[in-house]
Amino acid sequence: MDTTLDTAAPLTGEELRRLDAYWRAANYLTIGQIYLLDNPLLREPLAPEHIKPRLLGHWGTSPGLNLIYVHLNRAIVARDLSAIYVTGPGHGGPALVANTWLEGTYSELYPSVSRDEAGMARLFRQFSFPGGIPSHVAPEVPGSIHEGGELGYSLMHAYGAAFDNPDLLVACVIGDGEAETGPLAASWLSNVYLNPARDGAVLPILHLNGYKIANPTALDRIPPDDLIAMLRGFGYEPYVVSGDDPDTVHQQFAGTLDKALDEIAGIQRHARTTGDGTRPRWPVIVLRTPKGWTGPREVDGVRVEGTFRSHQVPLSAVRDNPDHLRQLEAWLRSYRPEELFDATGAPIDDLAALPPAGDRRMSANPHANGGVVLRDLVLPDFRQYAVDVPTPGEPMAEATRVFGTWLRDVIRANPDRFRLFGPDEVTSNRLGAALEVTDRAYTAQIRDGDDHLSPDGRVMEVLSEHLCQGWLEGYLLTGRHGVFTSYEAFIHVVDSMVNQHAKWLKVTRHIPWRRPLASLNYLLSSHVWRQDHNGFSHQDPGFIDHVVNKKAEVVRVYLPPDANTLLSTMDHCLRSRHYINVVVAGKQPAPSWLTMDEAILHCRRGLGIWDWASTDADAEPDVVLACAGDVPTLETLAAADLLRRHLPDLKVRVVNVVDLMRLQPDSEHPHGLPDTQFDTIFTTDKPIIFAYHGYPWLIHRLTYRRTNHRNLHVRGYKEEGTTTTPFDMVMLNDLDRYHLVIDVIDRVPGLGARAAHLRQAMVDARQQCRDHTRRHGEDAPEVTEWRWIREEAETTP
Amino acid sequence: MDTTLDTAAPLTGEELRRLDAYWRAANYLTIGQIYLLDNPLLREPLAPEHIKPRLLGHWGTSPGLNLIYVHLNRAIVARDLSAIYVTGPGHGGPALVANTWLEGTYSELYPSVSRDEAGMARLFRQFSFPGGIPSHVAPEVPGSIHEGGELGYSLMHAYGAAFDNPDLLVACVIGDGEAETGPLAASWLSNVYLNPARDGAVLPILHLNGYKIANPTALDRIPPDDLIAMLRGFGYEPYVVSGDDPDTVHQQFAGTLDKALDEIAGIQRHARTTGDGTRPRWPVIVLRTPKGWTGPREVDGVRVEGTFRSHQVPLSAVRDNPDHLRQLEAWLRSYRPEELFDATGAPIDDLAALPPAGDRRMSANPHANGGVVLRDLVLPDFRQYAVDVPTPGEPMAEATRVFGTWLRDVIRANPDRFRLFGPDEVTSNRLGAALEVTDRAYTAQIRDGDDHLSPDGRVMEVLSEHLCQGWLEGYLLTGRHGVFTSYEAFIHVVDSMVNQHAKWLKVTRHIPWRRPLASLNYLLSSHVWRQDHNGFSHQDPGFIDHVVNKKAEVVRVYLPPDANTLLSTMDHCLRSRHYINVVVAGKQPAPSWLTMDEAILHCRRGLGIWDWASTDADAEPDVVLACAGDVPTLETLAAADLLRRHLPDLKVRVVNVVDLMRLQPDSEHPHGLPDTQFDTIFTTDKPIIFAYHGYPWLIHRLTYRRTNHRNLHVRGYKEEGTTTTPFDMVMLNDLDRYHLVIDVIDRVPGLGARAAHLRQAMVDARQQCRDHTRRHGEDAPEVTEWRWIREEAETTP
Repeated sequence: MDTTLDTAAPLTGEELRRLDAYWRAANYLTIGQIYLLDNPLLREPLAPEHIKPRLLGHWGTSPGLNLIYVHLNRAIVARDLSAIYVTGPGHGGPALVANTWLEGTYSELYPSVSRDEAGMARLFRQFSFPGGIPSHVAPEVPGSIHEGGELGYSLMHAYGAAFDNPDLLVACVIGDGEAETGPLAASWLSNVYLNPARDGAVLPILHLNGYKIANPTALDRIPPDDLIAMLRGFGYEPYVVSGDDPDTVHQQFAGTLDKALDEIAGIQRHARTTGDGTRPRWPVIVLRTPKGWTGPREVDGVRVEGTFRSHQVPLSAVRDNPDHLRQLEAWLRSYRPEELFDATGAPIDDLAALPPAGDRRMSANPHANGGVVLRDLVLPDFRQYAVDVPTPGEPMAEATRVFGTWLRDVIRANPDRFRLFGPDEVTSNRLGAALEVTDRAYTAQIRDGDDHLSPDGRVMEVLSEHLCQGWLEGYLLTGRHGVFTSYEAFIHVVDSMVNQHAKWLKVTRHIPWRRPLASLNYLLSSHVWRQDHNGFSHQDPGFIDHVVNKKAEVVRVYLPPDANTLLSTMDHCLRSRHYINVVVAGKQPAPSWLTMDEAILHCRRGLGIWDWASTDADAEPDVVLACAGDVPTLETLAAADLLRRHLPDLKVRVVNVVDLMRLQPDSEHPHGLPDTQFDTIFTTDKPIIFAYHGYPWLIHRLTYRRTNHRNLHVRGYKEEGTTTTPFDMVMLNDLDRYHLVIDVIDRVPGLGARAAHLRQAMVDARQQCRDHTRRHGEDAPEVTEWRWIREEAETTP
Repeated sequence: MDTTLDTAAPLTGEELRRLDAYWRAANYLTIGQIYLLDNPLLREPLAPEHIKPRLLGHWGTSPGLNLIYVHLNRAIVARDLSAIYVTGPGHGGPALVANTWLEGTYSELYPSVSRDEAGMARLFRQFSFPGGIPSHVAPEVPGSIHEGGELGYSLMHAYGAAFDNPDLLVACVIGDGEAETGPLAASWLSNVYLNPARDGAVLPILHLNGYKIANPTALDRIPPDDLIAMLRGFGYEPYVVSGDDPDTVHQQFAGTLDKALDEIAGIQRHARTTGDGTRPRWPVIVLRTPKGWTGPREVDGVRVEGTFRSHQVPLSAVRDNPDHLRQLEAWLRSYRPEELFDATGAPIDDLAALPPAGDRRMSANPHANGGVVLRDLVLPDFRQYAVDVPTPGEPMAEATRVFGTWLRDVIRANPDRFRLFGPDEVTSNRLGAALEVTDRAYTAQIRDGDDHLSPDGRVMEVLSEHLCQGWLEGYLLTGRHGVFTSYEAFIHVVDSMVNQHAKWLKVTRHIPWRRPLASLNYLLSSHVWRQDHNGFSHQDPGFIDHVVNKKAEVVRVYLPPDANTLLSTMDHCLRSRHYINVVVAGKQPAPSWLTMDEAILHCRRGLGIWDWASTDADAEPDVVLACAGDVPTLETLAAADLLRRHLPDLKVRVVNVVDLMRLQPDSEHPHGLPDTQFDTIFTTDKPIIFAYHGYPWLIHRLTYRRTNHRNLHVRGYKEEGTTTTPFDMVMLNDLDRYHLVIDVIDRVPGLGARAAHLRQAMVDARQQCRDHTRRHGEDAPEVTEWRWIREEAETTP
């Protein structure tokens, strides 16, 4: 298959000359950043003292990134496009920095790095330098929405940015190394979920320079026809540009880009005039150029340009090796800087006039600084969706289903800025109400019997947590809102992506020109305790632990115990900014504990004593029963009920925690409860039996500095479980009501014979439940039918 | 493209009848497991009491799985194949259980589940039943190497199983939902790394039944020609079988399978006779059949067969709804069980004779119970590779490079059972010595200038942590050995996969017929403290935290402080069985602290006092300086040195921890140090300043039960960092030597004026280092040139 365009040379000689000069300027500035401490314009011969002591950065990908950038500039001007540039090979930081400096944005945002010789010197010096800027396309780089570190997420970010941005073009450069990753491989089919009428366009540019760090890449070495077949298989129309002669590549790339942009315009025109949202064949460009193109061809007798050896710093001993120094100078001078920069060090007028102006610059496009274009959600009053709770424990409600009714109306009220993402689990997680007002986005074939699919859908379902996360990140980073709902166990699939987003949030909090984004909201349901259909492989509550390792200023964790607290929590999360909010809530019928007003107050406090469940009225308790999570709360209240009935003299305090970060000291987390308040609630010397949703040691990790930590005893998930009944699951992990009662009896001194009797009864009850379950295949009625009864405790003589 | 084979019907009428009967039997047994408590052979009319109270399981994928299984059985017998079956749609547990029972393996391993009516009743009852077996293809299922929970990893497991198993056929069923995941999408190109001469064959069978839980799948709905193009693009030769008439599909599938197996045989013959290891075009089968095929067509007026509604339990109210009950009975009877099972309940002879016998049964193939075929590694004596350490701190050595020389000889000595896996980071992590004796496996095009690539390579490099992990898991699960080396931060990419493997290890420890596997060994280098080329995005030491959440009996974490301890640690890991070993070690030049003999002893103890660095000779110390990890150890020793020089009267004890699990109580982890020993080493009342490699709270989480925990103060990584110098990195996180001295002074009471003076000097030194770094771009000489000097401390008058 020959997919190279047979176009006449589309560029005039003058255009070609200017494009090439601009490209040379960007390459020069790239190399300057990697190497130079001083003498930025080579006004004197290069000397060792002009060279940085530590040579850090990545040259190999940079000439390709620069080439694509300048050609996009030309197209933006010619077509008045609104475009952003997603840099998959994000280690090519100096290339992007170079371009943003050339077009002026960098100096506008960082005035000390002015567009003159002194600024250029600062530009060079600061790169990968202590106190300067990172070597990658980090949040500090204007125009970036994509942290250049971990590879795999460029194309999903690009699609996320394009959703609901009909006038935006997202150019996405994918390096051939990145293309080997799973997340990137899955991303190609994102085109199944992009509506050409409603959404913007993504133009993937697969940049094959042949090598990763030390190895060739697979896509460069499979038969070229296979590569084309693969991209066609993904639904794209591929165009290949290949070569190592700059002028030829410029002409080819310009023609190919024009063709691709014409096709995109045609696709959008068709979709928008006919309303036909079905999946078109979008263009993709394959660019094959040498790694480290225009760099040193050989170093110390070994081939460098066009090989993996140009990945980072092609000349590594410049300060000490005069040959390397000479070679670097020759390399730098090969771009003829004297033709590119004027006497002040600024780009000559001819170059300065090439890129688009103002917001049309990719580095200044407001979509790439999402907080600027972010508009608040229109949020219906969640109180209207409350479960009516006449008495604690009544009625039973499915928390996520109740939340779903509010979510439905959030979706309805925000048809341009909110989406729901889930890996085929939206209805399983009982958020199906959303489908009353929208569909699932789908532009491939739709058949009779399919359920709520259309190109206009606002629910994004694909069986890939990576895609859900990446799309949502792209959507948030460009100033919109969303919720990601997933099974709790499998959200670990995106652990690493969460890390990177958390780092983005942390860094951008301290970059003044970056504006806060909508929070990344997780609603994890189908949680560890209720994997009735599945079992051990579906049980893991450790995502909370993972998130809590991130910077306190950007992470929040909520464990609402019932439907009304979930409503209040989600309303809070959707209003919040620049956090990662993890909310874990059940989907199974469960007791409602709090009225809406109580729920709001409880969520505002984050944790609190539930007086109605406690028996310590106005006095110091004998024991504190604490709980976090819906299932632990149920078991704790059942345990409190048992204690109230059978040990009525025991003063029990029940504490529920909805905002997990309240447990930390306020020195550690902004939500942390001050020690005095913590001591008041948890006492300084009484046993605390804490029933927790996840791994028990997390509670210790959060509270080890608290006065009463030595009396804290935590029950939680300890990796025991399989396909079994819900109560058997809590028993397998010693989190059940009977075991909690035993824990109380074992830890409160001097309870006497009645307690010993109760303890044995609890041991027996556990065995009976176990036997019943194994005999009948379902939980015993006394645990499934248990209800909290607000009544006076039986009194003993 | 028409890729359906135009074969004459390859099956005789008799063969067709038997295959179909076997398939019906498997389907019947599948449904029986989901629904029936009793009356397994329908000897009486089905009544509510025969039905399980909780209907759990997945029907939708099962008829397809059963069809593929029986056809593979036919081919195995016809060709005397050694084959295993990897079940991507692993939620189809009852299908696999049904087949293993039909061929007798199940009853051999679980005698109470005999191949008769009583056994069939037990088979049905135990499924998804408390005290029974999980609903998925769990480790309890004979013949499985692939936990059926989280989707995405089937094809990489299949390839891992095939490496170095030239006579093995790995049939891998990929569900169309799984095909949407990133890891699966990346797996197709695993064929670039499979050598047809040396390795076995993988036959991917993409089973498109059209739906996931609630949605259609992308691959089913893109144009069929695109799907074929995609698979060809991945380098395969695709064959499509499609239909819903069983006889037609049987004939087509049998012919297609024959064709595919002929091709595989031809490929292997060619490669093995010519020695040509280049990448052939392996066959892949696409099977399109209805979801829930042969199940209820409609339920309550809604279409079920062929839709997502058949994903789990098509008839959901059988116990209470007489219509559902009738429908279930009709469904079960549609398979004509009376023709399939004899009076005793065993499969009739005609069926029992169909599958292969003995080890040729896929459920009994020894490769699927890897511990059975596992052979120990031949391990060279690691002592021979030791760094000669005349005095602590000398010489400088790159730990991973030293380890690499031993690893090289491990590879050389085990050319059939050991591989090294890494995401393009083997040389970056300084393990390049491996390439002196082998290459990187690569069967695609190899060009001049490539470095150590060949089809025979034993180093597996691909830019995908998912593939590295999945291949290695498949390799280990089939009884081989390996090491995965990765950048520390990006190993989080496989968090979720580690979870599943840990669960597999935990469960299989308690399945008597499963034999222990070689451990899953991670060597994480390019760690958080030395991301000189990269920065914040490459910094995350939290994988340790993630792993430590798993069951203590299967996880081990090591932080060797120098080259010799790394050698000793890795030798131990490669000898160990059935663990996940996480080893974090540096690749940069760093001091060597221990002689080989000392290192061995230190590793055996797991932690210990370094007398030569301590000043508390035989007395109770004033302070304990503890450390874990190479960089923290260096900073701790430098701090101890400062204290020795400037506060010579202060009695300092230096403790190094190499085996992190020693910190836990022995009640929590098998490696845990008993409290008395812990108290002896860490004292019960003296301040402990602990310099730790990762997130500091992990140390608290491990030690909160220890007597002296209240005096423990931990320094570690707190999410501060960017592209900067090594010493600036430790300063940013307060882990540096100067800060450790300040910590000591702030926590040891009564040190007086000299200490106050030293404290100020430390504050000044930090500022000077900071200024120097920002001015010169490199660390100050006093920290880079610092060496531990074994000399008497200066004495003060």
